Amino acid sequence: MDIAKRLAALRCEMRRTQTDICIVPSSDFHQSEYVGGYFKAREFITGFTGSAGTAVVTKDRAGLWTDGRYFIQAEQELDPGMVTLFRSGQPGVDTIREFLKKELPQGGVIGFDGRTVGVNEGKLYAGIAEERDGKIEYRRDLIGKIWKDRPCLPDGKVFSLGTEYTGESVSSKLERVRARMREEGAGIHLLSSLDDIAWLLNIRGNDIAYCPLVLSYLLLYEDHGVLFADSVKFPGEIIQGLAREKICIEPYDSIYRAVSSLRPDSRVLLDPARVNYTLYQSIPEPVEVIEKENPVLMMKCVKNDTEIENIKKAHIKDGVAHTKFMYWLKKAAASLPEAGLEGTGNRQIPHPDNKSSVVTEISAAEKLEEFRSEQDGYISASFAPISAFAEHGAIVHYSASEESDAELFTGRMLLTDTGGHYWEGTTDITRTVALGEISQREKEDFTLTARAMLRLMNTVFLHGCSGSNLDCIAREVFWKERVNFDHGTGHGVGYLLSVHEPPINFRWKEGASPAPVLEKNMIITDEPGIYIEDSHGIRLENELLVCMDEANGYGQFMHFEPLTFVPLDLDAVLPERMSEEERDMLNSYHRTVCEKISPYLNEEERMWLAEYTRPV
Amino acid sequence: MDIAKRLAALRCEMRRTQTDICIVPSSDFHQSEYVGGYFKAREFITGFTGSAGTAVVTKDRAGLWTDGRYFIQAEQELDPGMVTLFRSGQPGVDTIREFLKKELPQGGVIGFDGRTVGVNEGKLYAGIAEERDGKIEYRRDLIGKIWKDRPCLPDGKVFSLGTEYTGESVSSKLERVRARMREEGAGIHLLSSLDDIAWLLNIRGNDIAYCPLVLSYLLLYEDHGVLFADSVKFPGEIIQGLAREKICIEPYDSIYRAVSSLRPDSRVLLDPARVNYTLYQSIPEPVEVIEKENPVLMMKCVKNDTEIENIKKAHIKDGVAHTKFMYWLKKAAASLPEAGLEGTGNRQIPHPDNKSSVVTEISAAEKLEEFRSEQDGYISASFAPISAFAEHGAIVHYSASEESDAELFTGRMLLTDTGGHYWEGTTDITRTVALGEISQREKEDFTLTARAMLRLMNTVFLHGCSGSNLDCIAREVFWKERVNFDHGTGHGVGYLLSVHEPPINFRWKEGASPAPVLEKNMIITDEPGIYIEDSHGIRLENELLVCMDEANGYGQFMHFEPLTFVPLDLDAVLPERMSEEERDMLNSYHRTVCEKISPYLNEEERMWLAEYTRPV
Repeated sequence: MDIAKRLAALRCEMRRTQTDICIVPSSDFHQSEYVGGYFKAREFITGFTGSAGTAVVTKDRAGLWTDGRYFIQAEQELDPGMVTLFRSGQPGVDTIREFLKKELPQGGVIGFDGRTVGVNEGKLYAGIAEERDGKIEYRRDLIGKIWKDRPCLPDGKVFSLGTEYTGESVSSKLERVRARMREEGAGIHLLSSLDDIAWLLNIRGNDIAYCPLVLSYLLLYEDHGVLFADSVKFPGEIIQGLAREKICIEPYDSIYRAVSSLRPDSRVLLDPARVNYTLYQSIPEPVEVIEKENPVLMMKCVKNDTEIENIKKAHIKDGVAHTKFMYWLKKAAASLPEAGLEGTGNRQIPHPDNKSSVVTEISAAEKLEEFRSEQDGYISASFAPISAFAEHGAIVHYSASEESDAELFTGRMLLTDTGGHYWEGTTDITRTVALGEISQREKEDFTLTARAMLRLMNTVFLHGCSGSNLDCIAREVFWKERVNFDHGTGHGVGYLLSVHEPPINFRWKEGASPAPVLEKNMIITDEPGIYIEDSHGIRLENELLVCMDEANGYGQFMHFEPLTFVPLDLDAVLPERMSEEERDMLNSYHRTVCEKISPYLNEEERMWLAEYTRPV
Repeated sequence: MDIAKRLAALRCEMRRTQTDICIVPSSDFHQSEYVGGYFKAREFITGFTGSAGTAVVTKDRAGLWTDGRYFIQAEQELDPGMVTLFRSGQPGVDTIREFLKKELPQGGVIGFDGRTVGVNEGKLYAGIAEERDGKIEYRRDLIGKIWKDRPCLPDGKVFSLGTEYTGESVSSKLERVRARMREEGAGIHLLSSLDDIAWLLNIRGNDIAYCPLVLSYLLLYEDHGVLFADSVKFPGEIIQGLAREKICIEPYDSIYRAVSSLRPDSRVLLDPARVNYTLYQSIPEPVEVIEKENPVLMMKCVKNDTEIENIKKAHIKDGVAHTKFMYWLKKAAASLPEAGLEGTGNRQIPHPDNKSSVVTEISAAEKLEEFRSEQDGYISASFAPISAFAEHGAIVHYSASEESDAELFTGRMLLTDTGGHYWEGTTDITRTVALGEISQREKEDFTLTARAMLRLMNTVFLHGCSGSNLDCIAREVFWKERVNFDHGTGHGVGYLLSVHEPPINFRWKEGASPAPVLEKNMIITDEPGIYIEDSHGIRLENELLVCMDEANGYGQFMHFEPLTFVPLDLDAVLPERMSEEERDMLNSYHRTVCEKISPYLNEEERMWLAEYTRPV
């Protein structure tokens, strides 16, 4: 990619339109985390391929802001002569706000495509411009002007999900949402977040990489609704089904016109965190806007009994596939080259010319995908698989490319963070596996990570706790060794929806809004990790189900139940570094893994699993 | 006390003034936690003596709202035929707000003394009255009308604290506060919280039980100030010292007139959480009010090096006094009666007729006070001492009275939660001590409590954590046994000021405002407890100093250093119930206790301490 030429073209376009600073976010028009090719404007202009980051371009500077998960990757992908990396949250690093304040000339113009920017972000930019007596131009898609071979908008087919999977009909969901609209005194509810719309209408699609979603907006009225989407994607029976709910389909981009012609006496409920700035600005002045979190958000976060039953099945399938993969990998490791033989005394990863007879990061990921595909009801990967060998493991969101694809050899570890969409739900699992004998340091770090994951998984808490209260249960183990991981300890997971499903999470730093209380039937990941740059990375991730525990005079106690059943590699565990309680946690988890997964394995695999789930 | 007569008199007064509902809070005019006799209106009208609670009286109902610390005490003190106990925060229990909404008739009047009510509370009552087309009358001190023998306002002498204790001059503190006033664009800062004023002016007094504070308000201008207080309490040199800072003294209650005649173009900085409703309402309409947390709040919360050095000395003295007390108590226990001999097979506490030759809760507390008095620089108790034997320990804020004062016998435990004001600072410590051989259940609970306290004391965390993040480090130990304690795990402590010093704390439930980040040189208590009604109560409390730890690529790590040095009673510890790590924590703490305290003990005490700090 010739970033220099693209930046020059953008700056030319900026001069033409008298734009002093151009902001290019990562998002599509729906604040989606993963976006289709059409929306990868920020990658186009900087070369950085990570899923999170914002580019800011002035006439002589260009910056890329991203968070701790992507520092190493951004360092590798950005040309520092062209684009400066701003490490968000690090001491002494300017925020975008601070940068804009310094760089925007008096009376200057900040340009961006308001459809790719959230409401608060847009307001922030407008405020900064105002301070300089300048202005924003939020209807400027400057990248669109210079991106000649921009991909088309996706045209994935829509499919519907029956109540045997969703556990609740569209009518029932609509009624629940309308009850909330009535409570808020809203006659209209504007929805723009794709997973909320998909959940509400029990539809899925193929428009977003790894997320079975449909590019759409929804205007829900008290007695009918309008879905803005490309009707060509919809099979007739889905259109008829929606019609029975009095929901018609209109063209995708006509939402902006529809919103600007809302009746002046309307009262519209919307979630400013889940509506783009242009859409928000399109609402006519006299319309009353009720700004609240989408009611759907918490509804879909608490899974119903049908969903839970399905999800448990999906995780058994995923556990079987992953355990088979682990067995395959351990067996393959026996015939892998040794590090020393490759002449890599400094432990650099070799790049073999002939990859046909070897195992690489990508071929290992393909093998895992193959095991998943063999499972009944498997649909697709739920996010870009991470398959990171040796020091690549230290790049939190590493993605192996043709160039980086490393050959596996013994004496190091392979980290895989992968997941699947099944008809019965979405999975997300990370395991780090030793190939042959690894170093003492790697074993110490693996044991530390396992202890943190197990401790959080086995905690007990009173109802009322949020992920902010409990994050330290995992993290304390790290902090006592004066190490940390620069990402949350966990996130919510959707049902055949986004693998990162807000709003629940485990984190210790307060976010924009307080972390919600953990309720029965929520699903959350538990994934501490350790990342030693240029050396190794370890992450272990189970999904947890929030369950009721004993209720007594002290209140309602809660605990977690693991949903993920795949062994933690005992070749990397130092039992003497664990307390007796922690060893009990590990042994008890492994006993369950063995019970749940063994019935689906062949004899060889079963023997292996018994060995790798032995008590320590 | 004849509560019936008092309620009848109040209701008579309510009829006369056409007040439908009368609210009687616990506070003085400064939102103080402990108040002088003059301000004990809520105790006067209900009979409940706890430090927290609000009474609400209608023409035919009377209710008392208090929190979990006081449930048992309130049950014992209230006459349920007269006053109903509302257990705040318990499921199904109406809040005061809900109660008022149900009870206030259309067009009704809520009356209260607005000086004893916070700004937000006053606004809440006004809002409820408005919903009913009614109104509030906040200048009605109805209790004052019927309280014939009401105590006078206190007239304690004022004394000053030199920079050898405070570490910072008044000029320097004033300059820091004025810098913050300038930042906020405020020409005037109105202060009403007594500890903030005492800290700022380096003065102390004797107006509040257990808190060396001076009843006062302060209007601080850019170049001068007015202290509203009874000038008779002030020695000449303090008046002169204040005059040098251009601060003059005007009568205590003239603040209301002064505030109502503020110039219309004034900009006043005030903390709505620390100013009473009447004072707030006295500000003329055109004056601009800047509502922010008092700048002094965080300034006094972070102790300076002089203060820390002094506080450490105070804690050694306190540790010596308490260790001597513990030795005395253990020795006394040898000659105490046995529970069985008293014929108290059901373990009821006996009430002996002749207390001269026995040890009781009160006489034990007096003994502890005696040991403290022997220490150089001791001033007074820092709060009402809690000395609670056997089942009295389950009453979190138990206060022994002539009637309840129990005789100690062997086989049970004595809980003391006490503290002292020294010139070198304020202490707060809780220990629970076994008299003779206690039950297995009591030992289990003691061990649980010790584990929780030690784990929190020994945690390590990244800078940026608040007490909300860390509370679960202590509480998880309890939750795993499906028990809990219905109070925070810790609170800030002032320097010769309030023993409960906001805003820092350890708690898991979010309060009105987010818990502040723990900064170097803050002081916080660590005091988990277990309370088994009608059986026993155990609490263990150390004070902790927030310290810098290693800084590395992950950030600035922090840890706690204990300030309190008194043994945890090994007669009540079950080492086999502790992990190896926890035993190490206990042994390491006891080693330090022995080192720090031994030099100040006599030979006998020293031998005893060595035995009671032995490794387990």
